[in-house]
Amino acid sequence: MDKKSPIRRFKSFRWEETEVLAYKEEGSAPFKAITRQTLFRDPDLKCELRYFEVSPGGYSTLERHEHMHAVLILRGRGECLVGGQVRAVDTNDLVTIEHWTWHQFRAGPDAPLGFLCMVNAERDKASLPTDVERKALESDPKVAAFLKGA
Amino acid sequence: MDKKSPIRRFKSFRWEETEVLAYKEEGSAPFKAITRQTLFRDPDLKCELRYFEVSPGGYSTLERHEHMHAVLILRGRGECLVGGQVRAVDTNDLVTIEHWTWHQFRAGPDAPLGFLCMVNAERDKASLPTDVERKALESDPKVAAFLKGA
Repeated sequence: MDKKSPIRRFKSFRWEETEVLAYKEEGSAPFKAITRQTLFRDPDLKCELRYFEVSPGGYSTLERHEHMHAVLILRGRGECLVGGQVRAVDTNDLVTIEHWTWHQFRAGPDAPLGFLCMVNAERDKASLPTDVERKALESDPKVAAFLKGA
Repeated sequence: MDKKSPIRRFKSFRWEETEVLAYKEEGSAPFKAITRQTLFRDPDLKCELRYFEVSPGGYSTLERHEHMHAVLILRGRGECLVGGQVRAVDTNDLVTIEHWTWHQFRAGPDAPLGFLCMVNAERDKASLPTDVERKALESDPKVAAFLKGA
């Protein structure tokens, strides 16, 4: 990041000097219609602040990991799965995702879902559910409908 | 923070289960018309995310410190001093405040200025300018006008 410019201007959910990246490497995990921008990453900061944007109908990967997520919805609305619960989320709501908690974000059919995510700079990689773990989650009909995108 | 509720709802720039606090202890430093809410603080997170809101005509303390600030303007507009430069800031702009850089935020006369600030959980205390340091800053007429609130 360019240390010479203290201000990076916002325009239409993009920021100056900030690249719009693929969410993850294609084929590495299931996801759909989601991008990633790293807003702050610096050797002097012990966390990173990222902005993820899910297009209408898109979703992040269903995953869990040791590290915590601290999320603020910056744009639009949608639903998230946190542990065993599906919750509606709207602009500026806060979401705490504790360690080893299954989570996934989905945009609604008619609005994008953009969110800030603060994480420790040093963190573990995410785990995907095994078939057994996915079936356990799907035993709740509300969770099953969410995971299907129904 | 209540670990049982993964979602804290937003309403009018306040959040559920999140106290609106004084910016600093009264009399500890110069500031005007500013509040503080800690959105995320957790032993498992190495940074905190705070929301500061400056009312029209208000300002944060002019200060500097070892630790960095990573700022996203969440509401309204205003001006900030970062080092020797006065810059207009608007909603969703990003501001990077490097270590030991003088900084102050001011809301405009007609709008609040609300901003997210990410900082390391372990950090040093802020220093206020000495008379000599303030005079050096004021040697630039634009900075002098900003500091006066003109």
